[in-house]
Amino acid sequence: MNEDIKHQPEKETARLEAFSDGVFAIAITLLILELKVPVLESSEMSPAVLGKALLRQWPSYVALITSFFTILLMWVHHHAILRNVCRTDAWLHFANGCLLLGVTFVPYPTSVLATYLPTHAAKTAAAFYSGTFVFMAFCFYLFIRAAFRKPLLSPSASAVFIAKTCHDYMFGPPLYFLATISALLDVRVSLLICTALWIFWATTITKNTRA
Amino acid sequence: MNEDIKHQPEKETARLEAFSDGVFAIAITLLILELKVPVLESSEMSPAVLGKALLRQWPSYVALITSFFTILLMWVHHHAILRNVCRTDAWLHFANGCLLLGVTFVPYPTSVLATYLPTHAAKTAAAFYSGTFVFMAFCFYLFIRAAFRKPLLSPSASAVFIAKTCHDYMFGPPLYFLATISALLDVRVSLLICTALWIFWATTITKNTRA
Amino acid sequence: MNEDIKHQPEKETARLEAFSDGVFAIAITLLILELKVPVLESSEMSPAVLGKALLRQWPSYVALITSFFTILLMWVHHHAILRNVCRTDAWLHFANGCLLLGVTFVPYPTSVLATYLPTHAAKTAAAFYSGTFVFMAFCFYLFIRAAFRKPLLSPSASAVFIAKTCHDYMFGPPLYFLATISALLDVRVSLLICTALWIFWATTITKNTRA
Amino acid sequence: MNEDIKHQPEKETARLEAFSDGVFAIAITLLILELKVPVLESSEMSPAVLGKALLRQWPSYVALITSFFTILLMWVHHHAILRNVCRTDAWLHFANGCLLLGVTFVPYPTSVLATYLPTHAAKTAAAFYSGTFVFMAFCFYLFIRAAFRKPLLSPSASAVFIAKTCHDYMFGPPLYFLATISALLDVRVSLLICTALWIFWATTITKNTRA
Repeated sequence: MNEDIKHQPEKETARLEAFSDGVFAIAITLLILELKVPVLESSEMSPAVLGKALLRQWPSYVALITSFFTILLMWVHHHAILRNVCRTDAWLHFANGCLLLGVTFVPYPTSVLATYLPTHAAKTAAAFYSGTFVFMAFCFYLFIRAAFRKPLLSPSASAVFIAKTCHDYMFGPPLYFLATISALLDVRVSLLICTALWIFWATTITKNTRA
Repeated sequence: MNEDIKHQPEKETARLEAFSDGVFAIAITLLILELKVPVLESSEMSPAVLGKALLRQWPSYVALITSFFTILLMWVHHHAILRNVCRTDAWLHFANGCLLLGVTFVPYPTSVLATYLPTHAAKTAAAFYSGTFVFMAFCFYLFIRAAFRKPLLSPSASAVFIAKTCHDYMFGPPLYFLATISALLDVRVSLLICTALWIFWATTITKNTRA
Repeated sequence: MNEDIKHQPEKETARLEAFSDGVFAIAITLLILELKVPVLESSEMSPAVLGKALLRQWPSYVALITSFFTILLMWVHHHAILRNVCRTDAWLHFANGCLLLGVTFVPYPTSVLATYLPTHAAKTAAAFYSGTFVFMAFCFYLFIRAAFRKPLLSPSASAVFIAKTCHDYMFGPPLYFLATISALLDVRVSLLICTALWIFWATTITKNTRA
Repeated sequence: MNEDIKHQPEKETARLEAFSDGVFAIAITLLILELKVPVLESSEMSPAVLGKALLRQWPSYVALITSFFTILLMWVHHHAILRNVCRTDAWLHFANGCLLLGVTFVPYPTSVLATYLPTHAAKTAAAFYSGTFVFMAFCFYLFIRAAFRKPLLSPSASAVFIAKTCHDYMFGPPLYFLATISALLDVRVSLLICTALWIFWATTITKNTRA
């Protein structure tokens, strides 16, 4: 960056955040496109049949709600991290890009899981789902390594938040890797680890931003 | 939140609003994807046949316009509420998330209603539609309970607006529940209640923000 | 609006603009979803056949480019109008909502026109296309009537721009209505009027914002 | 622009950036809609079959990742260019519009390439892909010519960055044209030129913004 820009006080990350917010918002909204109005034949048209048809879509509802809150939680983390940053460079843009690629991808393995969880192919679906989060956890780790460098930090950055986040995020990739391996043995163990980690990320961000 | 951030004057809700605006904007725009160019066979190709084919799509037009103004109204309310708030925390993010989940979902029951209103399955479709608004009204109530807490309020918050909004929003869940029950008896009663409530939300927000 | 908010200097239209920008941006980007990769049978697979298949999609390209620049031009007008406004109220939100409904709808009649222009049903398609712009022109007129009221105007509003815009926009609805009627007689006259008006809106906004 | 607006210090490009960010964000997120959950018959349902079905989608993954990082890189360039600009006019809006048209279009030739690269029609697909970038490079050149005019430049604009960018962007159109011609002779040469240019744009923007 050239001299004259270096001294301007404005937050450089504004457009990075706006762009990322856009990607998060779209990824979270596209989920609804999965839901299709059930088609009934006119001979069998009755309130009970439509009710059953709507209930039979439960795997799509589960996928929708799971993906929605997963992406929302990632947005809250992204938001909390960038609060401590006021400058950007090429590395942060690249790490953020990898993260956003993962965010837009999450609905796909979730759909695969919702479709194949009640079938004999459940193991592959669960491994694909957990495997995606190995990638996501790795991207998040890359992202904080890029974001929490001295020259990029905001003067109001919280040293405590940074230390805690760096510590917490290190557990992500190995634990999701464990979930991926478990999927090949028992699907329930894999999903239990993923759920436990989701709760962990939700409580840790609540605690860390409150501290 | 750590000490140093506590004293900065900037509006913390900026990114929450940007993200929510994105979700509202996308949900309102995706509605158009429902409309498909009618396919005519080349033998029957004439201005009159195309005209009829376009007119036959009226349930999609009704669904489009209804969903559009419903989401728009929810955006106006969301906007008016957050004007009184200048800080965020995990609970507000969570309540806002539930609200946005509902916003992205609204086009789906609207499509179901538009498809099945002229059929024998209308009762289920109307109950599904009203039932979605029980959820929405509950989310909005959750959202103002989270937003209108002392530590989050902006110094310029309007006590009158907050009191009126808290009062009005309490009627939402029970009245929409009534609409859902009525749907099983008479579809018209259910839709009448929903329409009356829509008009109520539109006039109340106009009055409350003007007061 | 309560007393204390009345005196704050910040631009109230910020969120209205952000939301509208989102809708414009999504409407303009969804156009690409119309384009589908052509499917070739493996027996006829050759560079020449793929080339022909891509060229045969020209009506989709025409629809894409026409819709794109139409929505872009509406965004430029929307942008130029709101530059003169610094306050919002329920009427402006409603007028803006109608305008955005039109913006999201434009790609649909454009697709209908692109599909049926080379067929015997061209007259209906052209009337549907021009008719949409009667609605759009009416919405734009409604929008400037709502936006250019005394209490909403920004202190830096340009009286010249407002007068010129109010004058120009009055011609919109009757001229597009003329185009709609002409479509039933001769499609080319209708499209000529639409194209001439597009050029008029493009040059008038360039002149008015430069003046 | 009228007198009174001329003196206000605020960055006029804010809404142009917000709108463009929206288009970039949506274009980059829509890519995922290409991926469809594979459909297995219940007779052949097994973890191995689902695994194979997911692996067989590799051309879609390649197209997704390629398009994603191509659009991301264009966003980084767009961002770096507009940092030096603080005023807008009709020409900049038009040039920006052409650029955004290209951005929304990129996923389409990428899909065509991913579909037809392993077939006999590869040459046309590669020429279509490279040809799109001739258009993009030309739009980017148009965009910097519009953006880097004296009256639009920000007081903090970097003369070094502008000179380097103007120099670098001149090579774009002829080199992509070369890639398009090569595609008709040998697909690999064409893709090699495109990849080399991608790396060039990534390193040049990193160097230029750091300098």
